[in-house]
Amino acid sequence: MSSIFTKIINREIPGYIVAEDEHHIAFLDIMPLVKGHLLVVPKKEVDYIYDLDDTLYSSLHLFAKKVAKAQESVVPCTRIGVAVIGLEVPHVHIHLVPLKTMDDINFSRPKLKVPETEMKELTAKIKAAFDYA
Amino acid sequence: MSSIFTKIINREIPGYIVAEDEHHIAFLDIMPLVKGHLLVVPKKEVDYIYDLDDTLYSSLHLFAKKVAKAQESVVPCTRIGVAVIGLEVPHVHIHLVPLKTMDDINFSRPKLKVPETEMKELTAKIKAAFDYA
Repeated sequence: MSSIFTKIINREIPGYIVAEDEHHIAFLDIMPLVKGHLLVVPKKEVDYIYDLDDTLYSSLHLFAKKVAKAQESVVPCTRIGVAVIGLEVPHVHIHLVPLKTMDDINFSRPKLKVPETEMKELTAKIKAAFDYA
Repeated sequence: MSSIFTKIINREIPGYIVAEDEHHIAFLDIMPLVKGHLLVVPKKEVDYIYDLDDTLYSSLHLFAKKVAKAQESVVPCTRIGVAVIGLEVPHVHIHLVPLKTMDDINFSRPKLKVPETEMKELTAKIKAAFDYA
């Protein structure tokens, strides 16, 4: 069975997609720690980040860097924090979390429920800021 | 003033170094979340990971992958979790945290104090497992 992220990639379920290329995609986490929390995902369904081959592993991180640059230009924060945990969905995902304090990246905190209009607005803004060059 | 990590790199203060090459270094966190928690650091003193140039950013991540492989072969865990926060020491550092549960990578938990003999033993084991090839 394909992962929930593969379903987003294949447009079987909706996602707040902010950037995409042949091998990578980024979308808003629907259970964010803070507003503007993104997930960066390889289209290839691999469970564990350190099982990616070096080529995809490197291109994924470079894609994440470009996503983070767009994200931090739009979402008020001190910097973008990064986390890869992977004990839940078995499909590699890099969390990019706009930080003001250490606690903003504490995954044991209750998740936010951000209204759909705001999620759509964030998506449009980050998408517009992403540099495809 | 040089960062605490630069002092470790320059051997001005001791560190539990497990791997090192021309541009990167990895050592045990002395305030670990769990035993075997490592930091992966570029020798160049840059504050923010997304300010690294693409070459160093990519080589740092590839170095971290090799460190994680050595670490997970030695430290009992389900997988290695990754975090980059960077609100404290202004010198890029990737946390590699051996995970059994989500809470193992919760930075708001009290840090462990691991006895020096055990820190030395972990260092030697991870160092021996690191593949310089």
